Amino acid sequence: MNAPRSLSPLKVAIAGLGTVGAGTIRVLADQAALLTARAGRPVVISAVSARDRARERGVDLSAFAWFDDPVEMAKRAEADVVVELIGGSEGPAKAVCEAALGAGRHVVTANKALLAHHGVALAQLAEEKGLGLFYEAAVAGGIPIIKAMREGLAANDIHSLHGILNGTCNYILTTMRETGRDFEDVLSEAQELGYAEADPTFDIDGIDAAHKLAILVSLAYRVPVDLDAVTIQGIRHISALDIDFATELGYRIKLLAMAHKGAGGIEQRVSPVMVRLDAPLAHVEGVYNAVVTEGDFVGRNVFEGRGAGAGPTASAVVADLIDIARGNITPVFGVPVGALKAQPVEAPDGHVGRYYVRLMVVDRPGVFAEVAAALRDEKVSMETIVQRARDPGETVPVVMTLHDTEEGAMVRALDRIGASDAMVEPPRVIRIETF
Amino acid sequence: MNAPRSLSPLKVAIAGLGTVGAGTIRVLADQAALLTARAGRPVVISAVSARDRARERGVDLSAFAWFDDPVEMAKRAEADVVVELIGGSEGPAKAVCEAALGAGRHVVTANKALLAHHGVALAQLAEEKGLGLFYEAAVAGGIPIIKAMREGLAANDIHSLHGILNGTCNYILTTMRETGRDFEDVLSEAQELGYAEADPTFDIDGIDAAHKLAILVSLAYRVPVDLDAVTIQGIRHISALDIDFATELGYRIKLLAMAHKGAGGIEQRVSPVMVRLDAPLAHVEGVYNAVVTEGDFVGRNVFEGRGAGAGPTASAVVADLIDIARGNITPVFGVPVGALKAQPVEAPDGHVGRYYVRLMVVDRPGVFAEVAAALRDEKVSMETIVQRARDPGETVPVVMTLHDTEEGAMVRALDRIGASDAMVEPPRVIRIETF
Repeated sequence: MNAPRSLSPLKVAIAGLGTVGAGTIRVLADQAALLTARAGRPVVISAVSARDRARERGVDLSAFAWFDDPVEMAKRAEADVVVELIGGSEGPAKAVCEAALGAGRHVVTANKALLAHHGVALAQLAEEKGLGLFYEAAVAGGIPIIKAMREGLAANDIHSLHGILNGTCNYILTTMRETGRDFEDVLSEAQELGYAEADPTFDIDGIDAAHKLAILVSLAYRVPVDLDAVTIQGIRHISALDIDFATELGYRIKLLAMAHKGAGGIEQRVSPVMVRLDAPLAHVEGVYNAVVTEGDFVGRNVFEGRGAGAGPTASAVVADLIDIARGNITPVFGVPVGALKAQPVEAPDGHVGRYYVRLMVVDRPGVFAEVAAALRDEKVSMETIVQRARDPGETVPVVMTLHDTEEGAMVRALDRIGASDAMVEPPRVIRIETF
Repeated sequence: MNAPRSLSPLKVAIAGLGTVGAGTIRVLADQAALLTARAGRPVVISAVSARDRARERGVDLSAFAWFDDPVEMAKRAEADVVVELIGGSEGPAKAVCEAALGAGRHVVTANKALLAHHGVALAQLAEEKGLGLFYEAAVAGGIPIIKAMREGLAANDIHSLHGILNGTCNYILTTMRETGRDFEDVLSEAQELGYAEADPTFDIDGIDAAHKLAILVSLAYRVPVDLDAVTIQGIRHISALDIDFATELGYRIKLLAMAHKGAGGIEQRVSPVMVRLDAPLAHVEGVYNAVVTEGDFVGRNVFEGRGAGAGPTASAVVADLIDIARGNITPVFGVPVGALKAQPVEAPDGHVGRYYVRLMVVDRPGVFAEVAAALRDEKVSMETIVQRARDPGETVPVVMTLHDTEEGAMVRALDRIGASDAMVEPPRVIRIETF
């Protein structure tokens, strides 16, 4: 709109035609008039590449040049932008993005693993070439959180962020609470329903959420993306018992991705936490994602929406394409790569907060005295204690919540408690997060 | 970042130095290094104008050129952008924006009244000159909702939007519920505390929310901003009794700004509604604002944050300045003015939904029969009925909730009921909104 603008179409090559690729083709076709009006020129697909040309995808590919090799397409297709929807941090996905940028094409990707591992190098390459590298679809699906943090909240230093960034885990935890069933059981069902992968490791061990957190942390704190800085714990160890106690105590258990600027540096963590029922993320259920940010001028913002699926993810991909079509190229992580500066990482040990602890105890005389002594010696103080059954000699769960305590001190106390012969299994700890 | 970029500062002239103006000066000073990194060049204030130069604002104005006349400043100051923070739909605010655009300067404004009344004409002027007209601060304070709708969700047609857009009303309704006090009482206190203006008309009669809704509707549906298309009802008639019944029935009363694409056109409405406790806006309390959008591909998104105040509003103003500094100029309402097309407006009469009705009745024999007959004749069916006291001959509140019914039919039934001599005051109606 500034100055006369070329009305030549933006040509797009798409690598990877799974759910999101097919969804992107559909949005570009269905919304062509809208997108032309918003972008100032048509956005058209020129080429596509996928492993299997013949696979039925519900979209017509006949108008697009076909490439068996996505890297070849990234280099040679007649395209202004290459959309990378292959996935994975290495191999063809990385090669496609490097080839596209090397050949002077902008890149749009939904690939959080790639950015978490190689974000800085790719951003450097894009910057050298004066190209855009956009990835709205990589974090929180249909929530425009990348744009919000990169542009909408750009006047702020972000003090903390809390996100539900993995729909699979949120679906499992929601279903466990609603049905009272245990983790393995709900996971199997989620796999059958297609909500969890055959190999669910990345999701349920928190790695996918950590990839996304590392990206958001870079945007929030202007640090180079650094997956190693994230302490990661997944949800495998969350039992129906813990979910039940959480409800009794007035909490929800959520897998949160969290970053917080403390005295010792930036704490970055993915772990299950208990949040109060009145916390902004307590009611984000099922496949929804959400992010809560605290900025110094703007205060708290909450962003919620669908975290995955063809429509929401394609919506994010196409929003990036419109930015590129308009020539609105912003630095990959909000500031030039040279302005990204590493900051110290605050170790989890230093975290001061409240905790939920579940012990599985053989109920014999003296057990409580042992527990109480271990806590006292580490200056850890108990807030509440709940014991459900009391058949002497049987295993009973004992649940405590602890007042504000340093994580290191609590871990030392629990190491001692866990060594007692009255403990049937290791103590289970879940952080209680107030925000 | 595209191509070599000029590092010359973006020069900003600010008209109006109230809370938001002073806040903007503070953000630009405190965050100078961050903003330079994000914007690609310094963002500096060159000139300011306000009514009273001597007033203490807690910020140092000595480095800026002073203009007694903001219009003169808009025309003559050494500035790339003029920030209009005077307010009001006519007079100096309008003159400043017209003068700035006329003189080839971009405009950033927080002025929803101005945009609601003159948005199309101003957008036309900006477009003709190839200039930006940005207004993130005009709607929902610190929530980057304008950017989200204009860019983040740009691939979608929006089916519906629901917003809590007026912090004063939300504060009053929240306080009424928490304290059980009546409207006039809470309003007086809000005025003393500075949460409501001396003349609160624009806020409590829903006009401010309507200004904001008209802007969001333009972005969502690509229609010219049209305040006249909005049906407006404020919160003056909401009593402590209604709040109390709402809680009993499992609802919260909120002043919502709503738009919805129906068969007859776009329904646009500001009114108090009852929302279920599990609705996304039920727990948005006090001075917070929130917007829920439903897009065809992205599905539901929720955006929440502070709706007013120096920090959040300045955060929004400065985000716009960064866009301008980067040269990221998007069409004012998401598409060129020529692509905005008026659509039919769905009359409230045609709305089909559920309703809360409160009658104040002299409890004498036959009253219920009259009420029941009037409803039956209009084919309006009752879902629940609550009557609290039953001292014969006394005035008692009778509260009904109605099953899905056409608003027009309900209004006819209530006209007849209201004419009965058993009714002590006109029936009170609040829409029940499910979303």
